Amino acid sequence: MSSEEGLFMRYEDLPKIKLPDGRDPNEICVSDSTIREGAQMPGIVMLPEHKVKIYEFLQRIGIEKTETFLFDEGDRAAAREMLDMQSVTEVTAWARARKEDIDLVLKFDGIKETGILMSVSDAHILQKIGFKSREEAKEKYLEALEYAVAHGLRPRCHLEDITRADIEGFVLPFVAEILERAPDAIIRICDTLNFGIPFLDDFPYSIPRIVQAMKRLGVKDIETHIHDDFGFGTSASIAALWHGANWVNTTFLGMGERAGVAEMEKVLVFLELRVAGFHKYNLECLTEFAEFIEKNVGLHIPLNKAVVGKNVFAHESGIHTAGILKNPFVYEPFPPDVVGASRKLIVGATSGREVVRHKIEEILRSEGIELKLRKDDTRVEAIFKDIKMQYERGRTSCITDEEMREYVKKYFDF
Amino acid sequence: MSSEEGLFMRYEDLPKIKLPDGRDPNEICVSDSTIREGAQMPGIVMLPEHKVKIYEFLQRIGIEKTETFLFDEGDRAAAREMLDMQSVTEVTAWARARKEDIDLVLKFDGIKETGILMSVSDAHILQKIGFKSREEAKEKYLEALEYAVAHGLRPRCHLEDITRADIEGFVLPFVAEILERAPDAIIRICDTLNFGIPFLDDFPYSIPRIVQAMKRLGVKDIETHIHDDFGFGTSASIAALWHGANWVNTTFLGMGERAGVAEMEKVLVFLELRVAGFHKYNLECLTEFAEFIEKNVGLHIPLNKAVVGKNVFAHESGIHTAGILKNPFVYEPFPPDVVGASRKLIVGATSGREVVRHKIEEILRSEGIELKLRKDDTRVEAIFKDIKMQYERGRTSCITDEEMREYVKKYFDF
Repeated sequence: MSSEEGLFMRYEDLPKIKLPDGRDPNEICVSDSTIREGAQMPGIVMLPEHKVKIYEFLQRIGIEKTETFLFDEGDRAAAREMLDMQSVTEVTAWARARKEDIDLVLKFDGIKETGILMSVSDAHILQKIGFKSREEAKEKYLEALEYAVAHGLRPRCHLEDITRADIEGFVLPFVAEILERAPDAIIRICDTLNFGIPFLDDFPYSIPRIVQAMKRLGVKDIETHIHDDFGFGTSASIAALWHGANWVNTTFLGMGERAGVAEMEKVLVFLELRVAGFHKYNLECLTEFAEFIEKNVGLHIPLNKAVVGKNVFAHESGIHTAGILKNPFVYEPFPPDVVGASRKLIVGATSGREVVRHKIEEILRSEGIELKLRKDDTRVEAIFKDIKMQYERGRTSCITDEEMREYVKKYFDF
Repeated sequence: MSSEEGLFMRYEDLPKIKLPDGRDPNEICVSDSTIREGAQMPGIVMLPEHKVKIYEFLQRIGIEKTETFLFDEGDRAAAREMLDMQSVTEVTAWARARKEDIDLVLKFDGIKETGILMSVSDAHILQKIGFKSREEAKEKYLEALEYAVAHGLRPRCHLEDITRADIEGFVLPFVAEILERAPDAIIRICDTLNFGIPFLDDFPYSIPRIVQAMKRLGVKDIETHIHDDFGFGTSASIAALWHGANWVNTTFLGMGERAGVAEMEKVLVFLELRVAGFHKYNLECLTEFAEFIEKNVGLHIPLNKAVVGKNVFAHESGIHTAGILKNPFVYEPFPPDVVGASRKLIVGATSGREVVRHKIEEILRSEGIELKLRKDDTRVEAIFKDIKMQYERGRTSCITDEEMREYVKKYFDF
């Protein structure tokens, strides 16, 4: 083996993952709830014009579906604008299991599908809504379902808090009754508090087992909507796809109630880059999308957020920058241009001589000076020591490009 | 079934999850890398005094181990202070596979264990480090291992980039050679770019299969260190515990290179609250710990960060606040005091009449006025409408408690 041959040296060498049972991965669809669940996030305010702009991004990416409230005038104005633009991304509604909510949906000619909230855990049925019994809840839910179907709507049943519900005693018999009335109903598995586990095998927590049970009942479209309170949002959503779900509901940046839900950007990157035969979405606008949200909707994106955080393609520490300068494959999960981002080498507290050397060469080059420096060049060493000393004295932010230029001027005298 | 009886109505009712094969869950230990990996995070600067303070939090929680660099005077000063305080949390070192790095460790009498970086993927071996062959890499790694062991150090072998390595052709035979020289060596599975999957069964990506293979080789202590580039950091770490790993390496808030690594706070909450028979850690200082980091180390914590984000126990939207007011179990994953946080009800763009009613009662109570209001009270309705109008006109932040008080004054005339 020579120094240029090895098992996985480039992204193209990495084996893709196959969906089990010979399934066509392109059957998997991504639906959005940024405009509904995302807008419910405490501490941000998503105005109608933001929703419309978000909808534009969804269409650019190629997301199949979004959902929206229709309760106030702002909701309805945004819905009308989205329906006017509708091409790639279907606009669907969200309703409680009440006739009056479904009537609101029916006023929109362009909307063909509505989510219907059907909370299935006893705490939600008996305490939150205040039904006297599961039986009463079921009757109300089925009544709303029948009303929606009778008026030509495709129903999407949101089984809220399913991972704290009596799956065998209540949920599965209830879903069988749904299918009797609406054989094409979409069943959404709402893991409301993220009690679901991607790798377990017991009810009520096993996401794989819940999906398999829905499949056995004959549900054609199984969708997940998984919160992130315990950090399993994305992984449980993807595990569900592995076990037979064909829809995954997400929000951009995981916006939503509390810790939010499975992040759209993580799911998209996983499907596009790692699943064999999957080609559907345009990821190049993800960075621009994140910048839009941060600037307009008031959500600060942390540096270490996967896929779109500012640090995903930023390298500072000695070992990492030295690796990146040799081959970015060494320390990047995928090339930055895939998501419309760019690579940054940062001189900071943990940088080594290699990044300092590289930065000096770069600055000299911008001054028209082509120079190949060695890491042990006395000038590189001097600048490296000056920088280290700043941090030892308590400097708390990175060296800017301007400061770096001053150092280079001092020692290279241009 | 009466309105107060149901399957899971309180946290105590929820079944705990059992570790497989009758394993005692308390064998699972959590190690920290906030002080090492976390400090490498671009865009933040962690000073020696911050490291010492972080170490104090680790001891309060009961984390078994941390690791630190010893390369510069700041690292060493922090290490000395930590060693002086050492009681619960063992201070260990981090070294490259070089004699001179291990000599640095040996200068610290109190340090008994060191990590040794042993990159195992071909891209890291041949390109990043520039070895001529896997064979050369292996010889250098084993040389460093033997030197550490001969000088009385317990070695922890960091198998970097293992999920893009030749597991059967290189990694497993190499680990067998490690065990010949150091039967008690800790093997750290470093999923450097997060290519590992928690639920797959094929090399090189299957975290369960890698763990099982290590177990078969007779490794006694199997540890994971899993990055979060694809969003599988925490779930793959916990899946590894399920398949036989007994150490999980984490950083607080997932600080680290790029998207960081598995979050300590998520792992701790999962183990303490959801695993049957697990009782080890004090989680009450997690919120204070997060506040310390945000204030001092310069990491902004997003509102929707699981466990410690400001939104985890904040409720704004109509359906959610109404549920919370009946029973917090309905929409909280666990009680806020578990992590030293408190519940907040926020009046915002998506709030309903119920939270407005509740807030009004609260403000009146603070004025000594005990009043039971109905949701359809005309004054509640008037305040609700005033607030809605603000948002429809483009207000972009929440209603503050002060503003709310002004509304109440206006309509209740106190």
